[in-house]
Amino acid sequence: MSLSFTVTHELAGSAARTGLLSTPHGDVETPIFMPVGTKGTVKAMTPEEVEALGAQIILANTFHLLLRPGDDLVAELGGLHKFMNWRRPILTDSGGFQVWSLTRLNKIVEDGVRFRSPLDGSEVYLTPERSIEIQQNLGADIMMCFDECPPHDAGHDYLRRSAEMTARWAARCKAAHTRDDQALFGIVQGGVFDDLREWSAKATVEVGFPGYAIGGLSVGESKADMERTLRVMNEHLPRDKPRYLMGVGTPEDFITGVENGVDMFDCVHPTRTARNGRMYTTEGALNIRNAVHARDAAPVSESCPCYTCCNYSRAYLRHLFMSDEILGPRLATGHNLFFFIDLMRRIRESVRDGSFEALKNEVYAVYPKGGKAE
Amino acid sequence: MSLSFTVTHELAGSAARTGLLSTPHGDVETPIFMPVGTKGTVKAMTPEEVEALGAQIILANTFHLLLRPGDDLVAELGGLHKFMNWRRPILTDSGGFQVWSLTRLNKIVEDGVRFRSPLDGSEVYLTPERSIEIQQNLGADIMMCFDECPPHDAGHDYLRRSAEMTARWAARCKAAHTRDDQALFGIVQGGVFDDLREWSAKATVEVGFPGYAIGGLSVGESKADMERTLRVMNEHLPRDKPRYLMGVGTPEDFITGVENGVDMFDCVHPTRTARNGRMYTTEGALNIRNAVHARDAAPVSESCPCYTCCNYSRAYLRHLFMSDEILGPRLATGHNLFFFIDLMRRIRESVRDGSFEALKNEVYAVYPKGGKAE
Repeated sequence: MSLSFTVTHELAGSAARTGLLSTPHGDVETPIFMPVGTKGTVKAMTPEEVEALGAQIILANTFHLLLRPGDDLVAELGGLHKFMNWRRPILTDSGGFQVWSLTRLNKIVEDGVRFRSPLDGSEVYLTPERSIEIQQNLGADIMMCFDECPPHDAGHDYLRRSAEMTARWAARCKAAHTRDDQALFGIVQGGVFDDLREWSAKATVEVGFPGYAIGGLSVGESKADMERTLRVMNEHLPRDKPRYLMGVGTPEDFITGVENGVDMFDCVHPTRTARNGRMYTTEGALNIRNAVHARDAAPVSESCPCYTCCNYSRAYLRHLFMSDEILGPRLATGHNLFFFIDLMRRIRESVRDGSFEALKNEVYAVYPKGGKAE
Repeated sequence: MSLSFTVTHELAGSAARTGLLSTPHGDVETPIFMPVGTKGTVKAMTPEEVEALGAQIILANTFHLLLRPGDDLVAELGGLHKFMNWRRPILTDSGGFQVWSLTRLNKIVEDGVRFRSPLDGSEVYLTPERSIEIQQNLGADIMMCFDECPPHDAGHDYLRRSAEMTARWAARCKAAHTRDDQALFGIVQGGVFDDLREWSAKATVEVGFPGYAIGGLSVGESKADMERTLRVMNEHLPRDKPRYLMGVGTPEDFITGVENGVDMFDCVHPTRTARNGRMYTTEGALNIRNAVHARDAAPVSESCPCYTCCNYSRAYLRHLFMSDEILGPRLATGHNLFFFIDLMRRIRESVRDGSFEALKNEVYAVYPKGGKAE
């Protein structure tokens, strides 16, 4: 068995828990935030920096790596860990989400999906089997089943048929999976319909996986819909297996996820916003390009112990961004990653010592629930 | 006295020498290569990384920092060292070179030069006094006199009048200089005319400075013209003062400069070329974007001990560049800076132990003399 999961603590009166996920490249404490290294690099950072910020596992994207440099090339170079010089665990997604979000003219049939590469227009064909083949070439510790990701406003009928096909694809993915040093997670779909979520969870659990992901959220639905769906998922997913909420999220989403039993999160949010100058603090997010920071000798956050806050003023960071200097996105990315990773560390601690409600109130006071999921 | 210079070793039968330059922010071994941090950052790198690569002093540009964020802002934030978090020595140029190379519609009169900001078109007026005021606001350990930098193909008459004005400006700069924790260097001009170079050197030395720069080279003249001019400069500049060859250069230029008594060099070459994927090795330079590197598991240089070469394959570096990932320019910049800084360290060693000729032959074999100065 390439992966084991142990629940180490359960918060009384809540679905929140802590756990330990063991992989061939080391252990991961849950709940965990996984920084995204889309193309085999967490943008602007070295692997050593990402690790020093406290990251225990990162995510890479099958879709992007398939198109460039190609999974065969990565395999030839010794796999993704070696290729990108990251020695800790990696999770790869299946390409499913990107096929729907980044390509046009995709044609979905029972066998798979045909689309044009956004890089050069060439035709690409992805099936459950091919997705697993690619992910085995990449060699991540955790792979994901190939799923269909319908738009959040798709109707009940479409979502039902889609969830059924995703369940059949899950069985095909499991059958195609041969490398025993990699674990394969199933993905539950069903939009924000409780009955479909329940059906999809049962069908996926029936195929049987060492972990389950909640797909199809954070795609434009309301936060209330997301939260209700997470409650349904918590009821119908096995409690002894890790649960991974895909593509989520923000500080407030972490809280909502954890109190509904989610163990794993990934999102480009902290790194992407950092490159646009949006920096997170315990007093709220700020845009460092704003003129108000031009002569400010203070760090982004007085209480933050990260490298950026210990060494640079808001004025200097603003200057870097206004001058399009690479060091700007670097320093902002380091800060935001630290903030997100450290928040998750504090969440784990609060689940263990019973202070979760207090932390939840602290986070919601600054980053309120409500509005659209990003 | 804010600066002292001691020649520590002279190579027999050559003008090459080693020395020690002491500044308020520490000592610098010469000959030295100064990485360029144009806008208050060595592009893509943190100050700690630049220092770890062996850099002992960096250069920043008065012209760019005047336009953004403004010298008054930098002064308010505690000076450039503090602003950019660099604790070792800094040299600032005077803005003279950029006024001629980066602006249009500049109007030169005896008092100074008027030009439009390339950022927003606003009118800027630079005089010798204003250049010194800006440089005192920035607070570098070494400042440069404001000079006129004529095109390399200007005639003898123009260059004579220009060198005369630069000499008068040197006296005005010296008179305007008040901070005693900063040293001010004079700049010799005169194009590639030996008589003008001799005249300019004598006139500048007559004003009297703790160091002298050779300006107006590496602007399009032939390498033969540059080398002859350096020989003339070596004859006419005092041997007990540091000589700084501005805006130079390449590995072969380092050799030519050092054997003609040059102690200091600066150039954007290693950092700028790195961002375009050009990487230097002891076997020659290569472009990492080239398809030949696509599946190459070898590092850029087998013999290079830098972080990039110890941890990444050519295939991965090429992938980063093809994918426009920030880590590509970062890793290439680190490598090139290491190569240039380490070459200069080897040059110092070779002057001390008498192996300079062997090193010179080794460098010229890979990076031949000749052609146009870059």
